[in-house]
Amino acid sequence: MFLSADIVDITAPFILLNSCDANSLGVREGDRVSLTNQKTKHSEIVPVTISETFAVCGRALLTAGVNRDLMISAGDEIEILPAKRPASLDFIRKKVDGGKLTRPETAAIVSDIANNVLSQAEVTSYITAAYINGMDMDEVEYLTREMMASGETISFSKKPVVDKHSIGGVPGNKITLLVVPIIASSGLLIPKTSSRAITGAGGTADLMEALAPVAFSASEVQQMTEKVGGVIVWGGATNIVPVDDILISCEYPLKINGRGKMLASIIAKKAAVGSDTCVIDIPVGPGTKIADEAEGKVLASQLIDLGKRLGIKVECAVTYGGAPIGRNIGVNLEVAEALQVLENKDGFGSLVQKSCAVAGIALEMTGKAAVGNGADFAMAQIRNGKALSKLQEIIEIQGGDPKIKAADLSFGPFTYEVPASAEGIVLSVKNRALIDIARAAGSPSEHGAGLTLHKKPGETVKKGETLLTIYAEKEWRLSEAIELCRTTHPVSVGGMLLSRVGL
Amino acid sequence: MFLSADIVDITAPFILLNSCDANSLGVREGDRVSLTNQKTKHSEIVPVTISETFAVCGRALLTAGVNRDLMISAGDEIEILPAKRPASLDFIRKKVDGGKLTRPETAAIVSDIANNVLSQAEVTSYITAAYINGMDMDEVEYLTREMMASGETISFSKKPVVDKHSIGGVPGNKITLLVVPIIASSGLLIPKTSSRAITGAGGTADLMEALAPVAFSASEVQQMTEKVGGVIVWGGATNIVPVDDILISCEYPLKINGRGKMLASIIAKKAAVGSDTCVIDIPVGPGTKIADEAEGKVLASQLIDLGKRLGIKVECAVTYGGAPIGRNIGVNLEVAEALQVLENKDGFGSLVQKSCAVAGIALEMTGKAAVGNGADFAMAQIRNGKALSKLQEIIEIQGGDPKIKAADLSFGPFTYEVPASAEGIVLSVKNRALIDIARAAGSPSEHGAGLTLHKKPGETVKKGETLLTIYAEKEWRLSEAIELCRTTHPVSVGGMLLSRVGL
Repeated sequence: MFLSADIVDITAPFILLNSCDANSLGVREGDRVSLTNQKTKHSEIVPVTISETFAVCGRALLTAGVNRDLMISAGDEIEILPAKRPASLDFIRKKVDGGKLTRPETAAIVSDIANNVLSQAEVTSYITAAYINGMDMDEVEYLTREMMASGETISFSKKPVVDKHSIGGVPGNKITLLVVPIIASSGLLIPKTSSRAITGAGGTADLMEALAPVAFSASEVQQMTEKVGGVIVWGGATNIVPVDDILISCEYPLKINGRGKMLASIIAKKAAVGSDTCVIDIPVGPGTKIADEAEGKVLASQLIDLGKRLGIKVECAVTYGGAPIGRNIGVNLEVAEALQVLENKDGFGSLVQKSCAVAGIALEMTGKAAVGNGADFAMAQIRNGKALSKLQEIIEIQGGDPKIKAADLSFGPFTYEVPASAEGIVLSVKNRALIDIARAAGSPSEHGAGLTLHKKPGETVKKGETLLTIYAEKEWRLSEAIELCRTTHPVSVGGMLLSRVGL
Repeated sequence: MFLSADIVDITAPFILLNSCDANSLGVREGDRVSLTNQKTKHSEIVPVTISETFAVCGRALLTAGVNRDLMISAGDEIEILPAKRPASLDFIRKKVDGGKLTRPETAAIVSDIANNVLSQAEVTSYITAAYINGMDMDEVEYLTREMMASGETISFSKKPVVDKHSIGGVPGNKITLLVVPIIASSGLLIPKTSSRAITGAGGTADLMEALAPVAFSASEVQQMTEKVGGVIVWGGATNIVPVDDILISCEYPLKINGRGKMLASIIAKKAAVGSDTCVIDIPVGPGTKIADEAEGKVLASQLIDLGKRLGIKVECAVTYGGAPIGRNIGVNLEVAEALQVLENKDGFGSLVQKSCAVAGIALEMTGKAAVGNGADFAMAQIRNGKALSKLQEIIEIQGGDPKIKAADLSFGPFTYEVPASAEGIVLSVKNRALIDIARAAGSPSEHGAGLTLHKKPGETVKKGETLLTIYAEKEWRLSEAIELCRTTHPVSVGGMLLSRVGL
């Protein structure tokens, strides 16, 4: 059957047909049709949705998700034929039934996800089944290789190529802004792709965007890295492991993050950018994704194993994740905090310590620093100003202003200081509450929004002293953030006497 | 925020917002908003989809699935506010993590499915998790009660109220067309709601539609049943257990049919129509949903247990499901076969035997027939013409022509006779292949399409004798059915000598 096509900018991949055409084709809602661009002869298989008004008889409405590769223009004729039920559904069903997927079965599933043959509901079923039934390391390796193969890959002639990844969950984790220039200024390559915040207050890509554009193609990532040693770009703009974005969007509603999928997602991206040496930061503790150090070590050994299978030398840093890294949360606030370290050529506290520890591992792994000396070598790159110069080169090659200073980044203008209601010691902070307050204030979409945590666990505070300052660009957002602060109590202050037990 | 609303006839429940409005609200794709009809103050919570072209800035596009209860007219102002993540997602996540759901948790999930708060992907995750992790009988009871409470219910002052259900999978299973008039003509009430075919060649609702309209409300079902003793209507048109249709549509792509959900779905519908006595037909064997008699007995005991919890006396008939019931498959073909039995006031073979056995159990359970005498009592209702008169009354009250005869139903006109390629005995038939051939010929949407199986397992056949006749309303459909017949070999004919083993 030939229909005239219209395009609509919905991301979910489906075709809208009028029931008159669906009946002629003999397809019902959820069945699939094969679409062929008559000019290019390119074909895609997509699920059908029925609508009497959106799709009039004789016309088909394609979503942008479908048309990404089909590249039909509005008004073009397309050929539509009923398509067989994809075999990938049987393989997903096999995983639902507790089976172990082979490499070709994994390849069919990943390819049908990448090509939008599977609906969101079907992908969600796969993710749910893989989460519940688990995957053994062979299955994880297959998934990693197929996810990697679903998009573009980079390879560098110069070695080693370093990469760095942080498991999420800890607010204010802006260490990439320091780790990348430290590594690159040491003469190593580090083509860093990062994500935007999904449920956080700012992903590394959101932060870097305050300094320079972050949307580049895979070949631009390669060229820029070859020129200046490193980049900090948004992975979502490249076509590197594109299937990961689809999986993440299906995981989002139920917050499902299966171990096998998590491992595959991390290592596939490292392999795809041509990295051979990788440091992975695993924050552990209440409020992070990993409960404790023991679980962190299990994850570490799995990442190391999977890395080995893909030819990547992996080491992991199990880090303290019970409180924010540094004191600032929110785009401009975090960027300013990182720039200050480089500008002052000094710094103490969690941000500098953690950045140098993580960078130091990579420096030791690649032989740039002697074993046990990596963190000091990293700190030296900050002290001698090379890290700052390198970050400026990276900002410049990505199209930003290399002369930008920490002081140029603006916060606020609406602010509120949360005072301590009593004298005492900060016993703990709630990571999730701090993130939610920063988000309520407008982060990450409003770059000036966020918060500064003046008192971290273990620090003493006097009654009335400021615990945290909230910044917002809009007054009503500030009110919402204050309200959230009142109900969530993000900072616990107490005396040393926790309870008195009488006779 | 207030937006002007448009309605679009898509079944899936979501609201399309332009990113300008989504950003102002602070919601992203997959988040939820609360919608309020400004006239009625009725509110609904629905998932958000972003589109720049479908939804222009300042206007919201609601699907019909959302508007079912909201009842907004195009152009109306609606109030849109960001909604909290529904708690039901946490309960689904609990099931994903292997937890046992409480009654309130089950209620929240069922209510959010019924009210379209949950997306198809989220419901699919619930179904997948319940299938993999299973449900204990308490959870199944909660699900049954909540599914029942999700729609309208009927209660009769007169008792007993009989119901009948067949587990699907066997082609040609038109016994309801005989069982209902036998039961009703014996002075019992039987308000039978049936389904349309999903993957079959004709559901009971499809068959009955050849005789009379089948779309009625719950109160019409009650009134008609009180008048003539029974009805055969389409359950999908009533508002009885409406959540079942949503669950079924999510099960369809991966063919997931978890035991707990299956039990709940059957018993909820029986309880909702006010039935207190129920016979359930469980066909077993290759090609059916239940592998063998032992598994059939397990299912039977689960149905009896669940029935008891809901106050319904359940008995099950584990039946032979290895071949079609009767010889005809397809709407008019099956209806004619059933009418013939009633018109001839006689009949032998699987259709009459099975119908009388199933009806007989209900007659014995209600004391209408002595124990061991139910099937004979049922046969007597056919012989004395009461079953035929009752079916005519049922056809008439549903708005059909009570004078319709088997001979009035037309088949074809394009036919093809499949000959036996050798002399021998029919060793087996493939149920699924027979169904697929009937569907390829046009069944159930084309009432004259289908097939007649002239030779069933155990019968002898000569070379060239007709094994089956295929009927189609369109020539191209006949060709497709013939082609499918050639590739699937639905009827196996062999000699008694299966293999000769030499020295």
